[in-house]
Amino acid sequence: MLFYDCATAPSPRRARMFIAEKGLEIETREISIANGEQLSDAFRAVNPGATIPVLITDEGATLTENLGIAAYLEARFPEPALMGRSAEEKGAVLMWNAIAEQQCGAPIAETLRNSHPSFKDRAITGPANHAQIPELAQRGVARVGAFFALLEDRLRDSDFIAGKAFSLADITAFVFVDFARVIKQRIPSENTATQSWYDAIRARPSAQL
Amino acid sequence: MLFYDCATAPSPRRARMFIAEKGLEIETREISIANGEQLSDAFRAVNPGATIPVLITDEGATLTENLGIAAYLEARFPEPALMGRSAEEKGAVLMWNAIAEQQCGAPIAETLRNSHPSFKDRAITGPANHAQIPELAQRGVARVGAFFALLEDRLRDSDFIAGKAFSLADITAFVFVDFARVIKQRIPSENTATQSWYDAIRARPSAQL
Repeated sequence: MLFYDCATAPSPRRARMFIAEKGLEIETREISIANGEQLSDAFRAVNPGATIPVLITDEGATLTENLGIAAYLEARFPEPALMGRSAEEKGAVLMWNAIAEQQCGAPIAETLRNSHPSFKDRAITGPANHAQIPELAQRGVARVGAFFALLEDRLRDSDFIAGKAFSLADITAFVFVDFARVIKQRIPSENTATQSWYDAIRARPSAQL
Repeated sequence: MLFYDCATAPSPRRARMFIAEKGLEIETREISIANGEQLSDAFRAVNPGATIPVLITDEGATLTENLGIAAYLEARFPEPALMGRSAEEKGAVLMWNAIAEQQCGAPIAETLRNSHPSFKDRAITGPANHAQIPELAQRGVARVGAFFALLEDRLRDSDFIAGKAFSLADITAFVFVDFARVIKQRIPSENTATQSWYDAIRARPSAQL
């Protein structure tokens, strides 16, 4: 297998943590988004969508999108399970993963990409350029605040976001909560359940990579 | 089990098709988005996120988000498989499902919700109001056009979007391609592979519901 990674971006970090939690060592190539390498002809020959992460499987297939990579690795390397064991757990993991993507990851990206000068005309990932829309930046901050409240409610009832076991949903939420610093949003000091959860995940070896 | 549905919206249609393709009959309650029932106290006691679809499992858990519902049903009722059998197929299904959600479903919603008067202050689903941003409406149309081109490329190589078998990814893409009519976007006449795929799925009993 071959893994295309980028050390500075949250999406590839999710896949990198998933791979590490599985105990896998996969040959890795670093693509520098800072240098625009994701838009190079060489990388677009790998992924025309110009996004990272990408996993080339042993069978030669090209998988993009975090959920595509996770589903493949979960099926090939079932232990430790990161996407649930029972039907209910499997449902809860993908439910909370979607909530974290849509209500935390998406608004952070909206705010960053529509406000920071380095994302001028790069408001959306991918090969096409899209102009920044400043109103999206403000909306994103409000939405991340709502997600922090939702997450605190959930983690007061549950050690991990999708239930009793650490899962893909924790990886997704952790990476985005951590990345919220780029839009100057941090876990509110009164959200003690979230802070405990965050500290526990930050201490895992997979979070150091 | 108990399924909360809405006949007019694309997200619950995805779950409805998935349930029908599994051959399941689940007790269903209709929530009228046209009448704002998703924001009622009664429905928010079921799903505080105020979104449809929702599945209440036999074990009493509340699953929201299409992927949460699909993963649960796939594990409990494995046949027919709708999320892949091999590791590669499982990866491809969730990869293409994510691409269809992000590159077709999201921009259609962006355009509709940021342009139509009936979505004033409802630019995003959920309990909080968000003002419309007219620039998003224009951007959404361009992005749906790019998705139609990507889909045609894919379907010239493959009978179904994620490979040789009909899957969740076809349901997601079909529902959103169909729903693109609300922003006056249709399959371009030269996209013959997409049209053949669309006609074949439209003929399935699950697409009639």
